[in-house]
Amino acid sequence: MKTNDKVLIIGAGLCGSLLALRLAQRGYKVEVYESRPDLRKVDISAGRSINLALSDRGLKALRLCGMEEKAREICIPMYGRLMHDTAGNTFSSNYSGRENEYINSISRGDLNAILLDEAEKHANVTFHFNKRCQKVDIENTIAHFKDYETDEEFTIDATVLFGTDGAGSILRKSYYLERKFLFSYSQNYLNHGYKELEIPADKSGNHQISNAHLHIWPRGDFMLIALPNMDGSFTVTLFLSYDEGEFNFENLTSEEKITAFFEKEFPDALALIPNIKEEFINNPTGPLGTVKCAPWFYKNNTILLGDSSHAIVPFYGQGMNASFEDVVVFDEILDKNLGDWEAIFKAYQKARKIDTDAIADLAIDNFYEMRDHVANPLFKEKRKIEMDLEKYFPTQYFSKYSLVTFNENIGYNEAMTRGRAQDKALLNLVADDAVHTNLNMTKEELKVILDKVKEETNAILEEDKITGM
Amino acid sequence: MKTNDKVLIIGAGLCGSLLALRLAQRGYKVEVYESRPDLRKVDISAGRSINLALSDRGLKALRLCGMEEKAREICIPMYGRLMHDTAGNTFSSNYSGRENEYINSISRGDLNAILLDEAEKHANVTFHFNKRCQKVDIENTIAHFKDYETDEEFTIDATVLFGTDGAGSILRKSYYLERKFLFSYSQNYLNHGYKELEIPADKSGNHQISNAHLHIWPRGDFMLIALPNMDGSFTVTLFLSYDEGEFNFENLTSEEKITAFFEKEFPDALALIPNIKEEFINNPTGPLGTVKCAPWFYKNNTILLGDSSHAIVPFYGQGMNASFEDVVVFDEILDKNLGDWEAIFKAYQKARKIDTDAIADLAIDNFYEMRDHVANPLFKEKRKIEMDLEKYFPTQYFSKYSLVTFNENIGYNEAMTRGRAQDKALLNLVADDAVHTNLNMTKEELKVILDKVKEETNAILEEDKITGM
Repeated sequence: MKTNDKVLIIGAGLCGSLLALRLAQRGYKVEVYESRPDLRKVDISAGRSINLALSDRGLKALRLCGMEEKAREICIPMYGRLMHDTAGNTFSSNYSGRENEYINSISRGDLNAILLDEAEKHANVTFHFNKRCQKVDIENTIAHFKDYETDEEFTIDATVLFGTDGAGSILRKSYYLERKFLFSYSQNYLNHGYKELEIPADKSGNHQISNAHLHIWPRGDFMLIALPNMDGSFTVTLFLSYDEGEFNFENLTSEEKITAFFEKEFPDALALIPNIKEEFINNPTGPLGTVKCAPWFYKNNTILLGDSSHAIVPFYGQGMNASFEDVVVFDEILDKNLGDWEAIFKAYQKARKIDTDAIADLAIDNFYEMRDHVANPLFKEKRKIEMDLEKYFPTQYFSKYSLVTFNENIGYNEAMTRGRAQDKALLNLVADDAVHTNLNMTKEELKVILDKVKEETNAILEEDKITGM
Repeated sequence: MKTNDKVLIIGAGLCGSLLALRLAQRGYKVEVYESRPDLRKVDISAGRSINLALSDRGLKALRLCGMEEKAREICIPMYGRLMHDTAGNTFSSNYSGRENEYINSISRGDLNAILLDEAEKHANVTFHFNKRCQKVDIENTIAHFKDYETDEEFTIDATVLFGTDGAGSILRKSYYLERKFLFSYSQNYLNHGYKELEIPADKSGNHQISNAHLHIWPRGDFMLIALPNMDGSFTVTLFLSYDEGEFNFENLTSEEKITAFFEKEFPDALALIPNIKEEFINNPTGPLGTVKCAPWFYKNNTILLGDSSHAIVPFYGQGMNASFEDVVVFDEILDKNLGDWEAIFKAYQKARKIDTDAIADLAIDNFYEMRDHVANPLFKEKRKIEMDLEKYFPTQYFSKYSLVTFNENIGYNEAMTRGRAQDKALLNLVADDAVHTNLNMTKEELKVILDKVKEETNAILEEDKITGM
C-alpha cells in the first residue's frame, strides 16, 4: 500500500474517527462518509447510549493518537460497582484491589467530537456528513451513497475501503448478499432489550448519588444500571426481557404498570427519575445483539473494523474499547510493511479475531454475572478474596475483570482463558471450604490462598489442554 | 389446530417426506412442494452425499412411522472405524463395546424413495415436484412458487406452513429478510470443503474393502472417509482446506498434482479409485457449514424443521438422525393437544433447540477428533478402555459416542454434557497414569477404572455447576 492510495472510510463514529485520525497521522489521504449529521452541530444522541465505559485498552488507543489527555479531561472515574437492593440498601464492590485501576464514564458524543476535531486538523482527511452508504460493490471497491440533504445519489471509487459503519454495517451486508465467498456470519439477540432513562442533577448541578461508582440494581431476570455524566445527571439503563417473566417490555404498557414495577423493584431509583413515565413510554427499546463474522476483508479492496466486524453486548463495558483496540492492532500490522492491503488485512484478522471473539463471549458471561451473581454470597466472598489478593499481591494476582479491563498488553482471549480457569479454581475452593477466609486476613493467610488458587488454576488449564489434545 | 387445516410442507427431502407421512398418519390434509424432480424417476444425486449414516435416533423416528423394517432392508451395518495410515496399514476401532450397537450406511435416495412411496399411499397427502419456493409471505402464510417445467409462477395460501427445505431454506431466508422480529441467525463455514469420489465394486459386484466399517484416512490437516453402498461400491469423501496448507482445493488443479497428493497421502485408496482424475476435476467441491437460528416459528403460521433450522457438519453422522428426531419430538408435542399451532411451535422449540444446538457443536468437535485424534496414542488408549468398559459393564458405561449415537432416549444436550465430562475425566486419568492398563485386563481391574472415571466425571460436573452458579 502507498500513502497516495485513496482511502475511503464509511462511518465517522468512534472507531471511524479514530481510524481516520491515525491513518491521517500516517500520511494517508482519507475521505470519511457518515450517514448522520455532524454531531458537533446537532444533538443526535436519541436511541444510542449517551455514555460509555472507557478503560485501559481504549486509553492505549487514544494514547497512540495523542488523544489520551484530552479524553481524560471529560472522564468521570468509577472505582467499583455500587449494588442497590429493593429495600434501598447498598453495598460496593471495587473493580480492583489496586488503587490506580478504575474505569471511566465518558460521553459518546463529546469523545466523538474531540476525535473529529483532531482528525480535521490534518489536511489529508475530509469528513462528509449526511451521506448514507447504500451498498458497496466489493469487487470494484465502489461505494454507493445517497445525500440526505439533496436526495442526490452518487458513487465513490476508492483504492481501499474501510467499513467502520457499526453493528448495522452496510459493507457487511454487501458481503452477505453478494455471496462472492463463503461468509461466516452470526447475529444473536438476547431475549432482553434496553431502555434509557435519566436521573437529573440536583438543583446545584451535582450528582444525587455517588459519581465514583457504576450503580447496579441486580434483580435476576432484569436489572437497572446508572453511569454518571459530567453535568451531574446519570444515564440509567433498564435491561428487561421483551416477552418473558412477570414484567417485560411487552406488558409494561400503561403508566400504572410502569410505576408499579419500579415501586416494587427499584424504589430508590424511582425517587430519582422524575420523568419516568414519559421517558419509559417515549424512549425507544433497543435490542441487544452480538455479531461475529469472517472473513472481515475482501481481497485488496475492503475491510470491516470496529462494531461492523464484532458488535457485542454492553455488559463488560468493552464495546468502544475493543473497537479502539482494533486501531492499535491495525497500526501494529501497518508497521510491518507487508506490502499490499490484502496481506495487511489477512495479518490483521489473524492477529485480532481470536480476541474480538473472546470479548463477545465474555460480555455475554457478564450479562448473567451482573443480573444474577453479583448479589450471590459465594460470588461476593470470591470478589472479597480477589480484592485482598490484588491489594497485597499487586504484581501477582489479577482477577478476570482486571485481566480484561486493566491489562491492555495481553489479548482478550488470553484474559478469558486465564480468567475463566482462575474463577473456576477460586469458586470451587470457596465452595469446598478449601480456603478459609475471615474479615481481616493477614498477608500470610492470603499467601496460602494465592498459592492454592495458582496451583488449582494451572491444574485446570493443564487438564483442559489434555482434553483438547 | 384441526385436521382440516391446510398443511403446506416446503421440501420433500428426508425430513419433509417423513413429516408428511407422519402428519398424514395423524389425519392432516398435507400438500408437499419440492423444487427438484421426483427422485424416484430421475437421478439427482449430483453434489449431495449419496449415502448417510443411519443410527438409533433415526431408526426410532422411522419406527414411529412404521418404516423401520423397510429401512433396515437397505442398510449396511458398520461396526466401527477402520483407520488407514500412509503405509497402507489399518487398525480398527469399534463404535461400541456392546455387540448390538452399530451404525448403518444407507442411500439417501433409496431411503427418500421408500418414504415418498409410503406417504403417497395416504389419500390426504399430495406431492408436487419441480415447484421451487421463491419466498414466503410469513404474515399471511402464502408461499410463492415457480414451476420449473412451465415457468409459471403461482402462490399457495396455507393454514400452516412447514419449511423442511434444507440448509439453504427459503422460509428461513424470508425470516431474515422480512425483519418482522429479532431473528438470531448464524451460518458458520469450516475452512474445509468436501469432494465425493468412488471406489467401484469388484468384477463380481463385491466390496473391495471391508463393508462392515466406516473407513478413515486421518491426516491431521485433511482426511478421507469411505462408506459402503449396497451395489458393492464405496462413496469416498475427501475433506480438505480450500486454501490453507501444502495441499488444498485451490492448488490441486492439475492431474499431476492430484495424483501426487493421493500417492503421497492415500496410496491404498488411490489404487481403488480408477477415475480419480476425472472425478476430482468434475465433481463439485461442497462447503461445510453449520446453521443455527431462533426463533424457528412465526406466530400460528410457519415453522422450520430439520436442516432448515439446524444444518450441521457431517462428522458425527447425525444430520439425518437429528432431522428425523425433530419429527419424533414434534409428534410428542402434538400428543399434548396444546390447542393452537403457535403453542405447539413454542413448546416444540423449547423442547428441541437445546438438543440441536448440542449436536451442531458435537459435530464440529468430531471434525477435529476424526482428523487429528483418532491416531493419537492417548486417544487410542482411551478408546480401548472404553470398549472394555462397555463390554464388561454394558449397563453402567456409555462412551460419549454411544450416548450420542445409540441412546435415543436421552437428548443430545445431556449426551454432550455427560460425554464431555467423561472424556475429560478418562483422558486425564490416562495422561496422569492414574489408571494403569494392559492388554488383557481382568474385570476386577476394569471395575477400579470404572469407579475412578465415574468419580472424576461427577467431580467435573459438580465443579462446572458451581462455576456456572
